[in-house]
Amino acid sequence: MFKNQITELLKIECPIIQAPMAGGITTSDFVAEVSNCGALGTIGAGYMTPSQIREQIREIKTLTNKSFGINLFVPNDFRVNENEISKSNDLLQPFNEDLNIKQNDRIQVQNFNSLNDTFHEQIKVIIEEGVPICSFTFGIPSKEMIKELKLHNIILIGTATTVNEAIEIEKSGMDLIVVQGSEAGGHRGNFLNENEESLIGLMSLIPQVVDQVSIPVIAAGGIMDGRGLMASLCLGAKAVQMGTAFLTCIESGAHEVHKNAILNSTEDQLVLTRSFSGKWARGIENKFITEMKKHEADLPEFPVQNTITQTIRKASSVQYNKEFMSLWSGQSPRLSKNESVENLINGIMGEAKKFFEIFSGKLS
Amino acid sequence: MFKNQITELLKIECPIIQAPMAGGITTSDFVAEVSNCGALGTIGAGYMTPSQIREQIREIKTLTNKSFGINLFVPNDFRVNENEISKSNDLLQPFNEDLNIKQNDRIQVQNFNSLNDTFHEQIKVIIEEGVPICSFTFGIPSKEMIKELKLHNIILIGTATTVNEAIEIEKSGMDLIVVQGSEAGGHRGNFLNENEESLIGLMSLIPQVVDQVSIPVIAAGGIMDGRGLMASLCLGAKAVQMGTAFLTCIESGAHEVHKNAILNSTEDQLVLTRSFSGKWARGIENKFITEMKKHEADLPEFPVQNTITQTIRKASSVQYNKEFMSLWSGQSPRLSKNESVENLINGIMGEAKKFFEIFSGKLS
Repeated sequence: MFKNQITELLKIECPIIQAPMAGGITTSDFVAEVSNCGALGTIGAGYMTPSQIREQIREIKTLTNKSFGINLFVPNDFRVNENEISKSNDLLQPFNEDLNIKQNDRIQVQNFNSLNDTFHEQIKVIIEEGVPICSFTFGIPSKEMIKELKLHNIILIGTATTVNEAIEIEKSGMDLIVVQGSEAGGHRGNFLNENEESLIGLMSLIPQVVDQVSIPVIAAGGIMDGRGLMASLCLGAKAVQMGTAFLTCIESGAHEVHKNAILNSTEDQLVLTRSFSGKWARGIENKFITEMKKHEADLPEFPVQNTITQTIRKASSVQYNKEFMSLWSGQSPRLSKNESVENLINGIMGEAKKFFEIFSGKLS
Repeated sequence: MFKNQITELLKIECPIIQAPMAGGITTSDFVAEVSNCGALGTIGAGYMTPSQIREQIREIKTLTNKSFGINLFVPNDFRVNENEISKSNDLLQPFNEDLNIKQNDRIQVQNFNSLNDTFHEQIKVIIEEGVPICSFTFGIPSKEMIKELKLHNIILIGTATTVNEAIEIEKSGMDLIVVQGSEAGGHRGNFLNENEESLIGLMSLIPQVVDQVSIPVIAAGGIMDGRGLMASLCLGAKAVQMGTAFLTCIESGAHEVHKNAILNSTEDQLVLTRSFSGKWARGIENKFITEMKKHEADLPEFPVQNTITQTIRKASSVQYNKEFMSLWSGQSPRLSKNESVENLINGIMGEAKKFFEIFSGKLS
């Protein structure tokens, strides 16, 4: 009933992908459990070193023989400016005091070399370890890289926030497109309009994309249950990618403070901020976001600002203090539950099957 | 197949409401045609005088014996400040030159009296003329007014952009709730958080609202075709309200320049602006929006700024110059067509019926 091009290509039972959330959420146990339950588990490897990636891939293979995926960030061109970094460091001083951080290592320009080299090494590990599926955020890898990955039969997934980005992804030769609506939590995946956050709701974005591309589309943003899955299928997507819904699951590696913040949040508390990383992202408003709002336009770009705020985010997390953590979440926190991955997936598929019965007149 | 509480209550064949677009779009012929084709035609009467309203209601009754509705703006409290008005008038001077406007009547504070009186008179006409359905934007009418309207068996529809607004509408005793997603064109209907635009995508907003209220919900924002109708029904809405899709129809009273701008636009050209009216609204970016952006935060509130920009908008429209018109549109302009109302409605219902056949296995 839910078999289609995507489930066939990704070798999964359910048209559901666990979003590749970066920052320690996608532990091996968690990813393997998602895949073992019939959806696609994926590693959020954007911030991981090549050796960490290799280790995790090998670990997951001991935990599941099902298909799983990995996500990388395509490095962006960014300016590094000693003066900007210094100003941003200064802005964080009051928070260091709040968190009793004695001495925040001030980030230097030389910390930002060789991101392109790292990206190439990450790709090399993925090829060597034979991960079957690789998705990308923040852009499209080079022609040569795509060719190399395809030579190794790796299925490639791009991330788009506009119709034009989707068209570019199709042109690049990738196999599938994740279409990220404005509802989505975490970082915006836009890459063509660098000054725009491309905040287009899924109700508008999915049908406009599917009319313009021929490769299958995966809907992402605010989808939490069988209603969201069925709505996405009606709009023309062939599968959904869900982040927040998986993040609060019992098995996810997200911090308890982060899980609880989402479980107790409402849709009107979600805001966009670039204060944590230099790139626009959606999360629950807290003290850090509120106080940094007035400086937001002047902060360094991603990934510079992300590195600068690392110490504060880490200290906040160690202290179970939600006020300085990046509490990423999509716009549907009221629908979040703290349940097992198995219950989440079975619940979605059960709900979705009921729709078929309703539509076919077996249920009313 | 599409009969439900809403179609029964509103006495319509199709679960589709033509959004009450203000500003001359909803002519009598247009509204009557929508109702004659089985959907609900509605008058966007927010800016109309009581006598204009009376005249149009009587006219529509000669053109259809089907059910139709009307929409009013609930007056907001606003400050009027001579100095702010003067500054805003000054900002418009360069545009007056662009448009060869010799002398723009400078708006005075005394222009803004008695909006509450007008609202009461509008309501009086609606009761006297026996309009069966009345919807409200920008707030909830007083308890007394709701009681009076219900005494006359008028069905009341509120507009919400967050779960809390939907809950307040239900508490007020209204019958139905239009849930406006971030995708929607024209003015944001938010009324509880005056400083927030409540930009929540429909994929998130509909299920979170239907879980918290018991009266039926109507989805609005970016919905253009059978895919959007079916997705909305899956998410828990019982009907859809569509603005942009009707605006570009042959029979709509929208300016040709406005229709063509939408027909030739793409999703990434839609922006939010408060420069036209003092209230946030979504439209196609043009010279006026671009140039006013830097002043946006300092402009007078709705409806003051709306009155101030009237001369410019009118001159631009007379001159077929799209650069100074408010080209409101939702986020799905690529799905817009210049077709008859009948074709639009039949097309949507035809597409939606196909979904039932697909889901029930009769089509694959």
